[in-house]
Amino acid sequence: MPKIAVILGSDSDLPKIKDCVSFLQEVKIDFEVNILSAHRLPDETASFCKNAKANGFEIIIAAAGLAAHLPGVCASHTDLPVIGIPLTSKDSDGKDALLSIVQMPPGVPVATVGINNSKNAAVLAAKILALKYPDLSDKLKNIKDKNIQTLKEKNRILKEKGLERYLEEKK
Amino acid sequence: MPKIAVILGSDSDLPKIKDCVSFLQEVKIDFEVNILSAHRLPDETASFCKNAKANGFEIIIAAAGLAAHLPGVCASHTDLPVIGIPLTSKDSDGKDALLSIVQMPPGVPVATVGINNSKNAAVLAAKILALKYPDLSDKLKNIKDKNIQTLKEKNRILKEKGLERYLEEKK
Amino acid sequence: MPKIAVILGSDSDLPKIKDCVSFLQEVKIDFEVNILSAHRLPDETASFCKNAKANGFEIIIAAAGLAAHLPGVCASHTDLPVIGIPLTSKDSDGKDALLSIVQMPPGVPVATVGINNSKNAAVLAAKILALKYPDLSDKLKNIKDKNIQTLKEKNRILKEKGLERYLEEKK
Amino acid sequence: MPKIAVILGSDSDLPKIKDCVSFLQEVKIDFEVNILSAHRLPDETASFCKNAKANGFEIIIAAAGLAAHLPGVCASHTDLPVIGIPLTSKDSDGKDALLSIVQMPPGVPVATVGINNSKNAAVLAAKILALKYPDLSDKLKNIKDKNIQTLKEKNRILKEKGLERYLEEKK
Amino acid sequence: MPKIAVILGSDSDLPKIKDCVSFLQEVKIDFEVNILSAHRLPDETASFCKNAKANGFEIIIAAAGLAAHLPGVCASHTDLPVIGIPLTSKDSDGKDALLSIVQMPPGVPVATVGINNSKNAAVLAAKILALKYPDLSDKLKNIKDKNIQTLKEKNRILKEKGLERYLEEKK
Amino acid sequence: MPKIAVILGSDSDLPKIKDCVSFLQEVKIDFEVNILSAHRLPDETASFCKNAKANGFEIIIAAAGLAAHLPGVCASHTDLPVIGIPLTSKDSDGKDALLSIVQMPPGVPVATVGINNSKNAAVLAAKILALKYPDLSDKLKNIKDKNIQTLKEKNRILKEKGLERYLEEKK
Amino acid sequence: MPKIAVILGSDSDLPKIKDCVSFLQEVKIDFEVNILSAHRLPDETASFCKNAKANGFEIIIAAAGLAAHLPGVCASHTDLPVIGIPLTSKDSDGKDALLSIVQMPPGVPVATVGINNSKNAAVLAAKILALKYPDLSDKLKNIKDKNIQTLKEKNRILKEKGLERYLEEKK
Amino acid sequence: MPKIAVILGSDSDLPKIKDCVSFLQEVKIDFEVNILSAHRLPDETASFCKNAKANGFEIIIAAAGLAAHLPGVCASHTDLPVIGIPLTSKDSDGKDALLSIVQMPPGVPVATVGINNSKNAAVLAAKILALKYPDLSDKLKNIKDKNIQTLKEKNRILKEKGLERYLEEKK
Repeated sequence: MPKIAVILGSDSDLPKIKDCVSFLQEVKIDFEVNILSAHRLPDETASFCKNAKANGFEIIIAAAGLAAHLPGVCASHTDLPVIGIPLTSKDSDGKDALLSIVQMPPGVPVATVGINNSKNAAVLAAKILALKYPDLSDKLKNIKDKNIQTLKEKNRILKEKGLERYLEEKK
Repeated sequence: MPKIAVILGSDSDLPKIKDCVSFLQEVKIDFEVNILSAHRLPDETASFCKNAKANGFEIIIAAAGLAAHLPGVCASHTDLPVIGIPLTSKDSDGKDALLSIVQMPPGVPVATVGINNSKNAAVLAAKILALKYPDLSDKLKNIKDKNIQTLKEKNRILKEKGLERYLEEKK
Repeated sequence: MPKIAVILGSDSDLPKIKDCVSFLQEVKIDFEVNILSAHRLPDETASFCKNAKANGFEIIIAAAGLAAHLPGVCASHTDLPVIGIPLTSKDSDGKDALLSIVQMPPGVPVATVGINNSKNAAVLAAKILALKYPDLSDKLKNIKDKNIQTLKEKNRILKEKGLERYLEEKK
Repeated sequence: MPKIAVILGSDSDLPKIKDCVSFLQEVKIDFEVNILSAHRLPDETASFCKNAKANGFEIIIAAAGLAAHLPGVCASHTDLPVIGIPLTSKDSDGKDALLSIVQMPPGVPVATVGINNSKNAAVLAAKILALKYPDLSDKLKNIKDKNIQTLKEKNRILKEKGLERYLEEKK
Repeated sequence: MPKIAVILGSDSDLPKIKDCVSFLQEVKIDFEVNILSAHRLPDETASFCKNAKANGFEIIIAAAGLAAHLPGVCASHTDLPVIGIPLTSKDSDGKDALLSIVQMPPGVPVATVGINNSKNAAVLAAKILALKYPDLSDKLKNIKDKNIQTLKEKNRILKEKGLERYLEEKK
Repeated sequence: MPKIAVILGSDSDLPKIKDCVSFLQEVKIDFEVNILSAHRLPDETASFCKNAKANGFEIIIAAAGLAAHLPGVCASHTDLPVIGIPLTSKDSDGKDALLSIVQMPPGVPVATVGINNSKNAAVLAAKILALKYPDLSDKLKNIKDKNIQTLKEKNRILKEKGLERYLEEKK
Repeated sequence: MPKIAVILGSDSDLPKIKDCVSFLQEVKIDFEVNILSAHRLPDETASFCKNAKANGFEIIIAAAGLAAHLPGVCASHTDLPVIGIPLTSKDSDGKDALLSIVQMPPGVPVATVGINNSKNAAVLAAKILALKYPDLSDKLKNIKDKNIQTLKEKNRILKEKGLERYLEEKK
Repeated sequence: MPKIAVILGSDSDLPKIKDCVSFLQEVKIDFEVNILSAHRLPDETASFCKNAKANGFEIIIAAAGLAAHLPGVCASHTDLPVIGIPLTSKDSDGKDALLSIVQMPPGVPVATVGINNSKNAAVLAAKILALKYPDLSDKLKNIKDKNIQTLKEKNRILKEKGLERYLEEKK
């Protein structure tokens, strides 16, 4: 039974990982959300990551904005794959966090996803775990098929109604 | 026995994935390098990725510069985890490739590593596969321990000899 | 009778192509809007583009944000000219999309227009088709002349009323 | 018989359009290279563009670096499609030229290609002209097929020889 | 009696030059605001700039956003000093306009001021004209002295009242 | 008889203002080059600028890289027009200097020219002084005419010889 | 008894240094806020900084946006450590100010903190003064311990209540 | 007797801190250079920083490129002031490192200096220590005075010899 640790540095970032959490729930991957901090709780963060494997976690997802050291610091304390989510902040477009997370030194990678794209962290985690847990693979396939149907249906309606009516009814 | 597909869009990029290939060889992960191209061989690329799982691949690593669509296009045709390596080009610092690879739409992630950091793609792949293949986990641990010893030894010599002599002898 | 395919990856982007659609209607170029997706409907997108010429399309306009692979993927599957519109997104100023669209590899160009400037995609398409369809050339000339008159008239009023009254009455 | 005008602002930029010229020669599109300048020969540039259509040109390709106004200025004086090539300069990575060329106001588009990617300007021009001249379409298809064969052959050799030998022999 | 031409490409930019106009009024420099456009009224723009000197203008101030060719195009048609104001736009932070305006080729400078900083265009124009018209020099000195007094008075009040009360009363 | 002060913060930047100096010599504007520094000789810089007008200077040209405060600091101590030249540095592309120079607060403008484009600083200075000294206006016109002839001649030769021979003979 | 000078160029920036002021009050460091300006009150700024040490100040904190010369100008007139805070502005994301403040020439450093992060300027100042005033060291330790407890308590509540209830109650 | 710890993550960065080391030697501040690493020696780095104060260090200078977490990680483990030096790398201009170092969360500042400007880290450290050790203050003053003399002498020679001879003899 796979388990994922989702870590962020401040409870003010919690709303930004909702899509991540929703997807993990949708594919029924067990997870635990923790408020830790590379800079304000460095020992607790190190300790959590060092014990993550022994505590049954298989992947760590870490979200951070600005200097965004959290994912990299996690990666320095564990052999588990770490997925990093760069976040925007009140005064930042998230490019700083993206570079801080993705430009890790050789040997200590963080698997980085798009800015604020917490859903993709969850999907990536699921794809990784699906290598080991074939059930997950089926769930992912079902979701993908459903999405394809939704898109095709939208396209069908768009052609039926035309752009203007489509946009009007969508409001 | 895990197997990885390494894909790039042009043989001119082959030297840039040497560190990736070296690491995969070091940890004895089987791999196959392919020159494919999202734009010049789109059908072959799609076909390769669709059959990758059936052909025994567990992870796809794709390296690309400039518009750098290759990793994302791979991800659109497979449920396997795709790792993307943004490359610099003759007239680009690789920021364009980084954004093209990492900013994927929700649902289709590419696990992005640093610009030209092909070693990290290999290490990330190994960390992912280590979840399923415990042998790999041991190998990664050994490499890490060796690196720590090397760094510590360098630090010891630096202190013994001082900065100037250290730099001189390093030349 | 020329026909243009307008493609976007999500119905949430539909409002952003309104100016494109309006201009095509103004010059009476036939068009069809499709929701396709380089990453979520890759086979349908490939199939649509491969058949576009046979289905009577002469130009493909593709709009996309973030990783923005759609225009390039279209270009990889057709010999028709492809015009790309980079879009802003909730958390992006569109520079990522611009680079993803314009920095295509040699041999597979996408004719790129400004960020969110969907009108220019339509005007460019009309200018291209006017090479073959002289009627279109006349229509474009008329629109241009009308615009020139409007600008000149605005300038005349501005001078007559002065800056302050002009701005006040414009509100 | 289609004819293309290739314009640049300085003879120091001539080497940067070699790939453009080679491709036009390969597909036997007639062209004429002109040194004009939006800022140093504004009247000659305006006059050239105003008469371009009457003089038998069907497309204008303009290359420029830095402020890079040339393509836009050409577009303001003609109804022909204008293709812009942003160039790097001694002290610039070409992002300034890219933005100056692509961010044209609504109504006056420039079809922009990648930085220094003059080949793509030629290919785009050929794709546009192929709408009207079916012969060109065949030539483009042949070139594309040849490229596909070359890439596939490279891939075959790579697999036969392995990465190391391939790179060695390529030197 | 000096006269300045203030040019912009669209009446939607008029509110952005209010500070410019106010300052010119304050120092009693005669000016004329014109809606011209490098791309939509190229001949009128050229003609206006060519005749500007003969028509009694001594400086041209041109404001533009996005591709922002207007100031450079003005400079190509006149020997008068041209001052350029880069403007933000709905989807742009003005960096594109800044680079388009400032990166002019050697021989055709545009005196560039800060993004949206239309006041500085007016002040710069006044400083330039003050070289020739000593009265202006006195007016500029008076304004500067007044500003210094205002700043010093604010500082005095801040110290008297303290930060909190100062901010409260400022509301 | 107009006189210009050219200021830079370090003698290592002297080679970068050669084009500025050459142009001033060509149009016979008197000038004086000074090594001052906003940060290392602040009092001397302030004193020089405060006395610049009394000492017969009419314009100050200041070149600086990195934080590039020099032009702005000059502007704060004089009512003369100040022209700023942003310079590249060993580890900087000059964008930092450009923003530091151009983004001055309202009321204290620096007339900014392109990165490393010291010639344009000289041309701008000459255009400004030509408002007051009609002789200069004639000299500028002659130079402009000569440049136009050179460009036209180059274009004539290019057409006569073709691109390949032109490039070969230019080497 | 340590004293800090907090300087900004305009009273409109006062709200942005509230967190700085609060922290200084919390750790009971004496401070004085001054509205000075590198460009509009250059002599007063120079004079203030030259006398700062004699007047009992031990550190200068300077906040500025756009060209943001204030911190560097302060540093040029004093041997006291200067801490610079880059500010966002109405039309700027603060990257210009960051570069203007941090890229000082060798020999004249400004200790730069994050964009709009005025609290960190105060914390840095306190850490510096704690080297000399051991009492401050204890206060900083207490604040740090309190913050750790707060974070841990938040984490405890998050786990107890779960993400949804936590977010709901936080509103 | 003050002591400073200089930390970097790899011996390949050692040449980049030479100016730092030279300045510390010039002002006779004791220091110790250590190769540590936020990601490859996280426990040793934490341990070093936690004990730094007890071991007699008063300031930590940390230099790092790319993700550049080292200075921030140091700051999370000590109450000593931490000075960060962003470094360029083979494929990076150092902007990534700058943002990673300077954009620290509120409460955990890193005093950031310019890209590759290791001398300024040393000067800043000296200015900080001079608050406590008056001898240092005198040394800094002497160095400053010497620099002023050198600059003035250069300016004198430049005026005596003129630009051309000055540049020639400087070679």
